[in-house]
Amino acid sequence: MSATTTTGDGERVSAGVPLAGLPPTLEWRDDTLYLLDQTRLPHACTVEAATTADAVWRAIHELRVRGAPAIGVAAAYGLCVAMQPHRGLARDAFVARLDEQAAYLDTARPTAVNLRWALTRMLDAAKRSAAPDAAALYADLVAEAVRIHREDEALCEGIGEYGRSLIRAGAGVLTHCNAGALATTGIGTATAPLYRAHRDGIAFHVYADETRPLLQGARLTAYELHQAGLDVTLIADGMAASMMAQGLVDLVIVGTDRVAANGDFANKIGTLGVAIAARYFGIPFYVACPSSTLDLGTARGADIVIEERRGDEVTHHGGRAMAPDGVRVRNPAFDVTPHELVTGFVTELGIVRAPFDTNFAARFALTGAPA
Amino acid sequence: MSATTTTGDGERVSAGVPLAGLPPTLEWRDDTLYLLDQTRLPHACTVEAATTADAVWRAIHELRVRGAPAIGVAAAYGLCVAMQPHRGLARDAFVARLDEQAAYLDTARPTAVNLRWALTRMLDAAKRSAAPDAAALYADLVAEAVRIHREDEALCEGIGEYGRSLIRAGAGVLTHCNAGALATTGIGTATAPLYRAHRDGIAFHVYADETRPLLQGARLTAYELHQAGLDVTLIADGMAASMMAQGLVDLVIVGTDRVAANGDFANKIGTLGVAIAARYFGIPFYVACPSSTLDLGTARGADIVIEERRGDEVTHHGGRAMAPDGVRVRNPAFDVTPHELVTGFVTELGIVRAPFDTNFAARFALTGAPA
Repeated sequence: MSATTTTGDGERVSAGVPLAGLPPTLEWRDDTLYLLDQTRLPHACTVEAATTADAVWRAIHELRVRGAPAIGVAAAYGLCVAMQPHRGLARDAFVARLDEQAAYLDTARPTAVNLRWALTRMLDAAKRSAAPDAAALYADLVAEAVRIHREDEALCEGIGEYGRSLIRAGAGVLTHCNAGALATTGIGTATAPLYRAHRDGIAFHVYADETRPLLQGARLTAYELHQAGLDVTLIADGMAASMMAQGLVDLVIVGTDRVAANGDFANKIGTLGVAIAARYFGIPFYVACPSSTLDLGTARGADIVIEERRGDEVTHHGGRAMAPDGVRVRNPAFDVTPHELVTGFVTELGIVRAPFDTNFAARFALTGAPA
Repeated sequence: MSATTTTGDGERVSAGVPLAGLPPTLEWRDDTLYLLDQTRLPHACTVEAATTADAVWRAIHELRVRGAPAIGVAAAYGLCVAMQPHRGLARDAFVARLDEQAAYLDTARPTAVNLRWALTRMLDAAKRSAAPDAAALYADLVAEAVRIHREDEALCEGIGEYGRSLIRAGAGVLTHCNAGALATTGIGTATAPLYRAHRDGIAFHVYADETRPLLQGARLTAYELHQAGLDVTLIADGMAASMMAQGLVDLVIVGTDRVAANGDFANKIGTLGVAIAARYFGIPFYVACPSSTLDLGTARGADIVIEERRGDEVTHHGGRAMAPDGVRVRNPAFDVTPHELVTGFVTELGIVRAPFDTNFAARFALTGAPA
């Protein structure tokens, strides 16, 4: 990161803010990629200019930009950043360098599907390009990155458009983790219906699970909803059932990292408990995601491999151990919620309800592979 | 606290350790009350001598000793500590001072039922005493405090005796918060069946919910079970349902702060979600408590008033804010679990199963008031 600007309350470096009060997750302006450093939230709202391939790689690797959709867009712009110094090369040399830089950026987070997807799409655009020289080819790359960016924004808007009708005036809506604006370049996935309803003047209340161990709910969801002026209450994860028992929750909306063909889905650890509690109290439970999150190659949730992360994420808080030395720890990053607990999937193509296997096919006109 | 001794691994100040590896919650030795400072766990195992009424008051007020049964015993011994300097007074003056000191200690934690109960019992013992002078009356007070202490130990043993049969070899047992040895002067309530089974050589595994926001599961339960040599795994609260889904949990045992006449019960926030998940997965869910925890004056759970604590317990971690300034927070300290989710109550008088209202009466030979 060669340039850093820390903004105070209300003072933003960025133009084109999608949500009042909230800086964009990332922005492409004057041939420069600006990234909101999410590792410093909610303490500092810092926008950094990533001006080299290394800077982009580190921003992705160190989770300054996170959330699958946002990572994809950052990688697309990142490839533009990486190729800027090479616009004076011969076309062939430029293309050779392009492959190298894409391969390099792809190593920033090995398991991030959207990272590879976006880089592949950029390389495909270069292959298709009729640009006569490197400078023109660079311009085509930027155009493709902007297209990926705009598509991501549109997916969020689409989810918001269909999900908006779920939010009634006075409703209490509970969400878990951050499938928010900060995870995308638009209004988020799980948060899209919330921002959309808020934009339409609907008054409602959001409960944000803090989402241990990494506290994305406290650090990111509570932050972005609060900044955007929504009425949000932060709770510890163990309080969700109690809020439901008190009649304060009318609806649950969460995001997802992968949806199996039968409707089972993986999401941040803790989602399963929320879904079970929602069922117990008869509260509708929705999953918001772009239709591309459906993975037909995964028949059911049991086939999803769950990442187990380091134990010190659980045992340490603010750098201080809160558990005895040497105690065994489990730290699965995700859990799998069975489809029977899902009321519907809110996608950019509409809301899909059970039976999911047949209704996914009907809604998405599937041809055997996800979009 | 006038004397402080910090013990290293294995080196203990205290005699009469009830569990191998674990210092006693409190101890009366050579007319001195020794308290394990629970606010410093698991970082330091510090035993402090409380040698004045003020020191006892502060230890209770500042949660260095916590857990309803342990508070009661600490208050009983604390009253002895408070009266030690007055053994040379005339008997009447001693009794007058006794009333003052009991009233003072009673203010240490206004909502702790066991605190008042123990102090009242000490005053009653003084009233009944035929001791001819202050010194003899002091000796009677010490004898009553020791009796309260031994009764608490025996209650834990009784719960362990009945609950032990629930723990099968190879079982996975999940618990929430700390209803452990550290909350009592014996082997705990929810932990009593675990320690008892461990003592009998049964090999099993415990999952300890960390129990946000105050992390009693991480700081205390994981600590005491690990110290005592039990096989314990620490998890974040949101992981409990995932452990159940993986077939790792065969049994849930929790403690309780109050049981209503119909079997609804209050316990540390997060218990309700655990109970709902256990029901979803068909896992037996037991509540361990002395029979005195049954409050016939409370007809049902909805009548239990839930303490709401300060929001910064949720927003701050290790002194550092992990949530945006100004965001609204809920922080109920307890939740209420409906009796329909309870498989049984494990008490010192036996295991009580549904229907609880009639079976409580049958088991406890109730006469209209709790023991």
